[in-house]
Amino acid sequence: MRGKKRASVFTENGDSAGIAGLGGEFALIERIADLTASCRDDLLVGIGDDAAVLKGAKKQRRIVVTTDMLLEDVHFRLSWMDPYHLGWKAVAVNLSDVAAMGAHPTFTFVSLALAGDTPVAFVDELYRGMRDVCALHGSVIAGGDTNVSPRALVISVTQMGVTSKKELALRSRALPGDVLIVTGSLGNAAAGLVLLEAHGRNCAEQIAPEAVAAQLRPRPRVREARAALRAHGVSAMMDLSDGLTGDLRKLCRASETGARIVADDVPVGEGARRAAASRNADADATHWALNGGEDYELLIAAVPDRADAVCEAIAETGTPASVIGEITEGSDVVLVRENGTQETVSRGWDHFAAGTSAAA
Amino acid sequence: MRGKKRASVFTENGDSAGIAGLGGEFALIERIADLTASCRDDLLVGIGDDAAVLKGAKKQRRIVVTTDMLLEDVHFRLSWMDPYHLGWKAVAVNLSDVAAMGAHPTFTFVSLALAGDTPVAFVDELYRGMRDVCALHGSVIAGGDTNVSPRALVISVTQMGVTSKKELALRSRALPGDVLIVTGSLGNAAAGLVLLEAHGRNCAEQIAPEAVAAQLRPRPRVREARAALRAHGVSAMMDLSDGLTGDLRKLCRASETGARIVADDVPVGEGARRAAASRNADADATHWALNGGEDYELLIAAVPDRADAVCEAIAETGTPASVIGEITEGSDVVLVRENGTQETVSRGWDHFAAGTSAAA
Repeated sequence: MRGKKRASVFTENGDSAGIAGLGGEFALIERIADLTASCRDDLLVGIGDDAAVLKGAKKQRRIVVTTDMLLEDVHFRLSWMDPYHLGWKAVAVNLSDVAAMGAHPTFTFVSLALAGDTPVAFVDELYRGMRDVCALHGSVIAGGDTNVSPRALVISVTQMGVTSKKELALRSRALPGDVLIVTGSLGNAAAGLVLLEAHGRNCAEQIAPEAVAAQLRPRPRVREARAALRAHGVSAMMDLSDGLTGDLRKLCRASETGARIVADDVPVGEGARRAAASRNADADATHWALNGGEDYELLIAAVPDRADAVCEAIAETGTPASVIGEITEGSDVVLVRENGTQETVSRGWDHFAAGTSAAA
Repeated sequence: MRGKKRASVFTENGDSAGIAGLGGEFALIERIADLTASCRDDLLVGIGDDAAVLKGAKKQRRIVVTTDMLLEDVHFRLSWMDPYHLGWKAVAVNLSDVAAMGAHPTFTFVSLALAGDTPVAFVDELYRGMRDVCALHGSVIAGGDTNVSPRALVISVTQMGVTSKKELALRSRALPGDVLIVTGSLGNAAAGLVLLEAHGRNCAEQIAPEAVAAQLRPRPRVREARAALRAHGVSAMMDLSDGLTGDLRKLCRASETGARIVADDVPVGEGARRAAASRNADADATHWALNGGEDYELLIAAVPDRADAVCEAIAETGTPASVIGEITEGSDVVLVRENGTQETVSRGWDHFAAGTSAAA
């Protein structure tokens, strides 16, 4: 349900009369939300959160639905992405959205466009990857549509999940004073993309295996999200798909708050560090952790007196949790740098654009 | 939830080691069904019907979910498809699947890949078409994902619907002796495709406006399906997306029956007749009605003593219903020709392949 405009390697040359020139990451999604505005009593949350929220037949039941498309040469290249991990990732990014709503994944639907000469073994591996990540998180592939297409490979996944009214997590309910928490570490996936684009799969894996693994096989934080919710203190939650700074801006916008994060407190992934070191550009690691996309970690706003309990509950799943800042009044997202300077965060992550510019 | 292999203008040159050479329309879907076989108690029907069927929170409630992707230059060309009708059709073909399950449409999810220089007005029209067909049938656009892509335009729609255990219609429950009924008339959409490909939009509309309208703006038979079910006599139902003969084979295969249809009783659309006459090839009209795809009419197997009541209930919605044959023992689908000869039906419809070969 992101409805967001995804970045592309080609957007930098976009015609300003076209959608690429609409101006800003929120413009297209807001336009679409306006175009589709309509109501059903049982649609509780529409376009704008990680997933839509539907009322179930029972009063407390909530069904969440999200959809996300992966496109060849926009989100991956077949030169470095194998079919198993492509299947895994296409489903995992959707499971991540369901996790961020506080829901249990239930059913997965897969629409594919494949070239007619795609080897049957490729399809087998693609589904093996999808099935494995589904099985880990309790979902099953319940349907789909398979098309033979001469152009780029496309995988569009729709993922359903179920939760209760009480355990539903939205990105719009953060309050000033809430403590900001992230799971795991950040920057690995963006570093992996840069390495894969620059050096290819084998060499990239030699340099920073954690970075490549994060790019190819994201781990949706389903258990972590449920653990955080059971600790009773989560005000708002979302998954980090477009980079911490950009996604935090979305959370703040939805909650009508500001935020302040401390760069030094943001957990930088080992893969990002290794990748940065290999380029003799240590600052890249922090850049990727702050602005890089596709980490699929959770960003949580927790009420202050429950923040420790939320972190502990997450840590018990085996995944670390870090306090990185707080929700503030106003609307600015402020980053406090190591030297004490403060800057206002203005933009998020462009997938391949950032990858290639960083590599240039 | 078709899971079917879609035809493409390029499949005829497909490498036999690839999926296009898997052999037969059922091969890929059955392979995928095997690859994804897994169970959840609340998944009642998975891959293989028009939509997946999920158990709702209440005992009698059934949720249906279907997904279908339209690809530029596989399912449409921008030279003859305008954005309003593209949006309409992308949603309508999914609503048709939900209708065929006996369900009320509820929520629509839309994933898009658009070029960065797509005019904003194009997006507006696309959503206007989607919104209009949703509104006609009680659905709302509840979410989506929008991607900027340099390659072909892709629209992937997932449609949800709701029905009850009692009113759920499957394609797998036809019994020998059941009467076969179709709604509306057939062949218009295939004729429209042939004209559009051969002559372009303006000229095609001059020749056979009904055919072009059927290709560009299919009318999902939601009310007709509900009316048929209320007449209490529907054994099995599906929508006609890949052509009568091919789809009837699928219904028979799912029901483990055969069928016998009478060519003369198949209602041939006015657009198909006009298009055929313009080509001085009257036989094309019957060919399109029997084998052409994208009519999105309903194919119904009704118990013999309720067939009249089912037809009358459908007719009351303003859409005609025709008896075209019956379900038989065995597994053959037999077509009785005008001259009394019988032939066994062996294949369905290839979208552009059939269009272009018929036009050649």
